[in-house]
Amino acid sequence: MTHAVGVGIDWGSSNVRAWAFGSDGEIITQNAISMEFADARAHGFKNCYQSLLEPLNVSNDVPRIACGQIGSRTGWFEVPYISCPGALKNWLQAPIQTPEPNLYFLSGASKSNPSPDVMRGEETQILGATSQGHKGLFCLPGTHSKWARIEKEQFLDFDTYVTGELFAVSRKHTIFGEFTVEGEPDWQAFAKGVEAAKSTPLLNLLFLPRSQVLAQKQSGQESTWYLSGCLIGSEILSANPNRLSVTLIADGMMAELYSRAMTVLGCNFAPLSADACTTTALFRAIQSKIET
Amino acid sequence: MTHAVGVGIDWGSSNVRAWAFGSDGEIITQNAISMEFADARAHGFKNCYQSLLEPLNVSNDVPRIACGQIGSRTGWFEVPYISCPGALKNWLQAPIQTPEPNLYFLSGASKSNPSPDVMRGEETQILGATSQGHKGLFCLPGTHSKWARIEKEQFLDFDTYVTGELFAVSRKHTIFGEFTVEGEPDWQAFAKGVEAAKSTPLLNLLFLPRSQVLAQKQSGQESTWYLSGCLIGSEILSANPNRLSVTLIADGMMAELYSRAMTVLGCNFAPLSADACTTTALFRAIQSKIET
Repeated sequence: MTHAVGVGIDWGSSNVRAWAFGSDGEIITQNAISMEFADARAHGFKNCYQSLLEPLNVSNDVPRIACGQIGSRTGWFEVPYISCPGALKNWLQAPIQTPEPNLYFLSGASKSNPSPDVMRGEETQILGATSQGHKGLFCLPGTHSKWARIEKEQFLDFDTYVTGELFAVSRKHTIFGEFTVEGEPDWQAFAKGVEAAKSTPLLNLLFLPRSQVLAQKQSGQESTWYLSGCLIGSEILSANPNRLSVTLIADGMMAELYSRAMTVLGCNFAPLSADACTTTALFRAIQSKIET
Repeated sequence: MTHAVGVGIDWGSSNVRAWAFGSDGEIITQNAISMEFADARAHGFKNCYQSLLEPLNVSNDVPRIACGQIGSRTGWFEVPYISCPGALKNWLQAPIQTPEPNLYFLSGASKSNPSPDVMRGEETQILGATSQGHKGLFCLPGTHSKWARIEKEQFLDFDTYVTGELFAVSRKHTIFGEFTVEGEPDWQAFAKGVEAAKSTPLLNLLFLPRSQVLAQKQSGQESTWYLSGCLIGSEILSANPNRLSVTLIADGMMAELYSRAMTVLGCNFAPLSADACTTTALFRAIQSKIET
């Protein structure tokens, strides 16, 4: 049995991770399972949860706090969204007790003006970043990238951009798929795509990678990275037209892509690890649970 | 045997049509076949051509002039593109003799700056419209909408917008497909989508129709037409940011959608029938062939 004071869980749409925290927030043990959400549902969320936690060897009486898709309508227990705009502490201090002993879910964020929008999981990353003093504009890239605005401990607004999904759909379900090739990143082609987004509207931009291949001006591999640059460039220019400084919350290749695109566009940014932001916020939520 | 002076053929990616013209350009007989391009290739283009022309009952010695995909790399005989910018008469006066007796193909248009782009078929519609005195900005909506600029008998520039394809792909291959419903047009939802495009960047706009359904602010049917409005509104605003007067070349539902969207956006337009533009241009090409 570890001396953990609590467990944080990030249960997203394609993988689940858990961390056992010591009293200073240090990670004592951790575990991760790659599992599509629909498979987890089929397998039984409770079974997955037990498999996830068992190796952590944590006492039954410490709180476990989870964020992400697991609290959605198709998740294990649905927990409501908290409305944005609102104080950040609304999210942090309100873990919701589930029917499972000592298991709490964090609420996602929703907004209704001018259009409805939702997030589940990214709000936790934002909480982690703000606890390190970051504020202003936040970019959280992904299949559905989120851009959020935080000022004076208030979660003011956010919007979803379907950048990653559109890249995947273009490669899988349009004629462009015939041209694309897996391979090492071509950063020159990527930067050209980002540049093209400055002067070309997106609906036209989505045609260029194919016509470049057809006109034999780019190879399939170049064009794949060019399309990635077009889409990410277009997202950044749309979400941040005045090129304000941005806190970029991402890991791995996603961090690399967005860092490079922001550099091409002359946009200042502070890169933060998404995983580190998540664990920071989950530990803070555990602390607030222990204190109450 | 009719007294036709020539036959015009529009051979596109999903259907083929032929018109036998009298000496004043009147249509004496016509025929149409619905056939996917790949099926026509498998069946043999020559067989399709013969089936198409037989009912027209036209003498073997009159010219037959075809435009569209049939002249592409995957078509019956490939004919080169003519470069844009260039004089409109370059396209009209240069039907290319195929190996088939008395059969000529019109060239498509290509451009290389700042990016390569191509069209096959739309240039013929534009020729038809310009012969009626239209000039300036042209919109030719479709799976791959084309916007073209013509001044002083010169074909100056054009760009492709993947609007129709993106609508189809969103409905077929994203989570949005679960929400959409076939049905009568909901013009109010469509106009709301066009309005939303004024203030919302496209990558964000593509998320809204789903979140509207999830937030129970729109039915699936409303959201389908809302998405259509979002996309068409975004295309028009991108392609015509200064809201110049436009010649809109389209038929049927496509003409209806774009007319309504341009009206919502306060954009003046002159609607022309795409079919009428095609037959006008094909007859002019036949005349120029007869005269040479």
